[in-house]
Amino acid sequence: MLLIKRFGSTFQRINTICQAKQPGDSLGVRGWIKNIRRLKNNIFLDINDGSTTQKFQIVVPKNDATKALTAGSLIKATGKVQLAPHGHYELHADEVETLADGHLTEGFPFSPKQHHAPEYVRDYLHLRSRVDYIAAAMRLRHKAQKALHDFMDNNEFVQIHTPIITTNDCEGAGEVFTVRPDSESLLNQMSRPDVPKENSYFDSKVYLTVSGQLHLESMSYGLGNTYCFGPAFRAENTKSPLHLSEFYMFEAEMTYIEDLSSLCTFMEKMIKSISQQILETSSLDLEFCQKNALGDKQVLGWLDKSWITLNYKEALDIIVRNKDKFKTAITPDEGFSKEQELFLVEHCKAPVFVIDWPSAQKPFYMKQSRTDDSIVHALDLLMPSVGELCGGSLRECDESRLRNHPHLPNGLEWYLELRKYGGLPTAGFGMGFERYLQLLSGIKNIRDVIPFPRYPHSCKM
Amino acid sequence: MLLIKRFGSTFQRINTICQAKQPGDSLGVRGWIKNIRRLKNNIFLDINDGSTTQKFQIVVPKNDATKALTAGSLIKATGKVQLAPHGHYELHADEVETLADGHLTEGFPFSPKQHHAPEYVRDYLHLRSRVDYIAAAMRLRHKAQKALHDFMDNNEFVQIHTPIITTNDCEGAGEVFTVRPDSESLLNQMSRPDVPKENSYFDSKVYLTVSGQLHLESMSYGLGNTYCFGPAFRAENTKSPLHLSEFYMFEAEMTYIEDLSSLCTFMEKMIKSISQQILETSSLDLEFCQKNALGDKQVLGWLDKSWITLNYKEALDIIVRNKDKFKTAITPDEGFSKEQELFLVEHCKAPVFVIDWPSAQKPFYMKQSRTDDSIVHALDLLMPSVGELCGGSLRECDESRLRNHPHLPNGLEWYLELRKYGGLPTAGFGMGFERYLQLLSGIKNIRDVIPFPRYPHSCKM
Repeated sequence: MLLIKRFGSTFQRINTICQAKQPGDSLGVRGWIKNIRRLKNNIFLDINDGSTTQKFQIVVPKNDATKALTAGSLIKATGKVQLAPHGHYELHADEVETLADGHLTEGFPFSPKQHHAPEYVRDYLHLRSRVDYIAAAMRLRHKAQKALHDFMDNNEFVQIHTPIITTNDCEGAGEVFTVRPDSESLLNQMSRPDVPKENSYFDSKVYLTVSGQLHLESMSYGLGNTYCFGPAFRAENTKSPLHLSEFYMFEAEMTYIEDLSSLCTFMEKMIKSISQQILETSSLDLEFCQKNALGDKQVLGWLDKSWITLNYKEALDIIVRNKDKFKTAITPDEGFSKEQELFLVEHCKAPVFVIDWPSAQKPFYMKQSRTDDSIVHALDLLMPSVGELCGGSLRECDESRLRNHPHLPNGLEWYLELRKYGGLPTAGFGMGFERYLQLLSGIKNIRDVIPFPRYPHSCKM
Repeated sequence: MLLIKRFGSTFQRINTICQAKQPGDSLGVRGWIKNIRRLKNNIFLDINDGSTTQKFQIVVPKNDATKALTAGSLIKATGKVQLAPHGHYELHADEVETLADGHLTEGFPFSPKQHHAPEYVRDYLHLRSRVDYIAAAMRLRHKAQKALHDFMDNNEFVQIHTPIITTNDCEGAGEVFTVRPDSESLLNQMSRPDVPKENSYFDSKVYLTVSGQLHLESMSYGLGNTYCFGPAFRAENTKSPLHLSEFYMFEAEMTYIEDLSSLCTFMEKMIKSISQQILETSSLDLEFCQKNALGDKQVLGWLDKSWITLNYKEALDIIVRNKDKFKTAITPDEGFSKEQELFLVEHCKAPVFVIDWPSAQKPFYMKQSRTDDSIVHALDLLMPSVGELCGGSLRECDESRLRNHPHLPNGLEWYLELRKYGGLPTAGFGMGFERYLQLLSGIKNIRDVIPFPRYPHSCKM
């Protein structure tokens, strides 16, 4: 608030004005004209300054100075706040100054009055922050990341910036990006015997991270509970509205967790708590996004329910018993399809943790059941509309079990050493941040909840 | 706090115990034994759980069950809190249980009692979170990022995740990394006519970001004030203790800023405010890092001073008048050396903003003086010990000046369009987060303020 005073002098942003102003207050506002109506004596301007989706009206007298105003002009207006007949505050401006020329005459792609299809809006990535629902989604995203950091800090987790460039190739799955310096002369200059020239910058082939988990574990062994929240990358060729080549992952690692039910309890508590904070800080933006995407359909019913836990066998039984309802095949060796995930949620009338999975379906680092090697203490969290939101597990803390795992990747001697020098009972999970935003807002395409989406054949700007 | 209760039952972390416990309270503690002293009837354990650098002592009776304890064991102890003769709290344990085998016998690189050189500690990146000063630096880093997010949110900035993968090659400076999918078959599958095969994933050559500024500007044009805080990359061959190949940049863009003095005021206020918050949340870790790096030398004197502003000419005059004091050459066309930057700070006895630079030394997007084309409204912020901490400027808002700039890079038509459709007066700056941490903590090598340092010939884990 101090800042706004200092830098804007008498200028205020519309979200603040709408909350706090009294009739009669003197005030300045700056923003884009979204809509303009010319009546006999006055001109009525709807103005947008990027702070809210709420409409704010400015009333200016019709005269030579104001007749050039058009929708799309950037203006500065000063005057007095009045209560309008419809019950909202409006500004009766003594003075209106154009800060930049109108932009509608020369090919600006968005008409302020028109609703444009998301595909069309996405074509103008550099300009789309001026579109209502994109601005609302970006403010929502900001408040969501803030809620995550607040919650984790309150619970004494330490944030770790896990590396973006890594030698870990994600179990050789092939869906990774590689990185090298652009400059050939740098590679030549840095070359060393026994290192292929293209790897000479780091002396090793390197990749963009797909997960910070293993690195996070190495930090948790010294610091206790940790988390990371940053970009992750997947080189897949997919047009799915739930996948991006560059996306944000939230991951947490917790020490001294001995059973999945403790992990489930934490996850439910965390997701409910951050969602509650977002409802408090961003109710207008959230409603706007939901209404824009879904109309009046209610999407946050899962917040008030107790979440359900099923083991994999129970979940599979439900799917098999209802096999006639699916277009997708039932594949007990490969888990559930999105359709089946959503059915489980619908069937249970609540979000579902599916726990205790077949070992063969899950990665090497998950803890084997000590009574049945074919089971790992893994979980998937299934939610309405997005399906799988989180995956997690207890981590295998026995060095020899890890060392003998048939799918232990090369180059992870360091990971085994964490256990060799005192294996802790740890557990953790990851959550796709964009999917969480889709779950909250109802926004259908993941490309509209991230500022600069990257996907096959598209890396604009 | 609820969380700790829920998951640790009676277990508490040492930082909490040291602050709040009363003699007589029952309590459990888990952690690594750092040091062990055996007296006649009792064994005294110094224990470390990653939550603090404060020592915490556990007293256990000498018996068959406890005699196997060694430094490096991971234990769980329960008992009652007592006030020790030296005035600190300690735990008189009824029960001590070993959670994992001791790790000192088979080649663990760190002796709990010994001080190891930073270069040695860095060789064991995966284990170094168990080393006191590294754990303190990571907690400090966490609280510093939290302070940044808190400050920006309080001041109504919107955080934007600017893209990591970008088509912007940083003005062709050659110090960039390129990115491509690892899989040849994916590239074949995605290939299109007229696109070189190695670029077929995105239909374009792509790079790791060096700065989020230009993308941030496109968001500020719709949303108002924005910031980003994330990884940035530089493919340089340097061994400097102030440079990394992967580092974290904080960048802010502000709308309706018409002069550099407003920007300087904001920057001084922000850096002082977040530093103050870190002093409040992390005083013990900060002191520990400073003491470890510098002994008793005071490093935060700049917090209490008013910062100085010099224009480039004035700063150059000071350097020229003192030319006998420098090992480095004076190069008026290339700015100042680190030695000269530190001299300016020393000379002014305060941090220094150097403003109004020769256009030829600065990038195309900085705003030209309207009275003298050879000057741009740019600033560098110089600080003690690290030299340049921040760079910033007013942004050129005139499309035709930008379009005619001799160093306008290719591919930035979108950046020009931001202005074409209504150029705002905007300004912004960037701050290297690791350098800020070095400034605060006195830690000499940048590789020790980031969890997983990446630098030439080194990308461990």
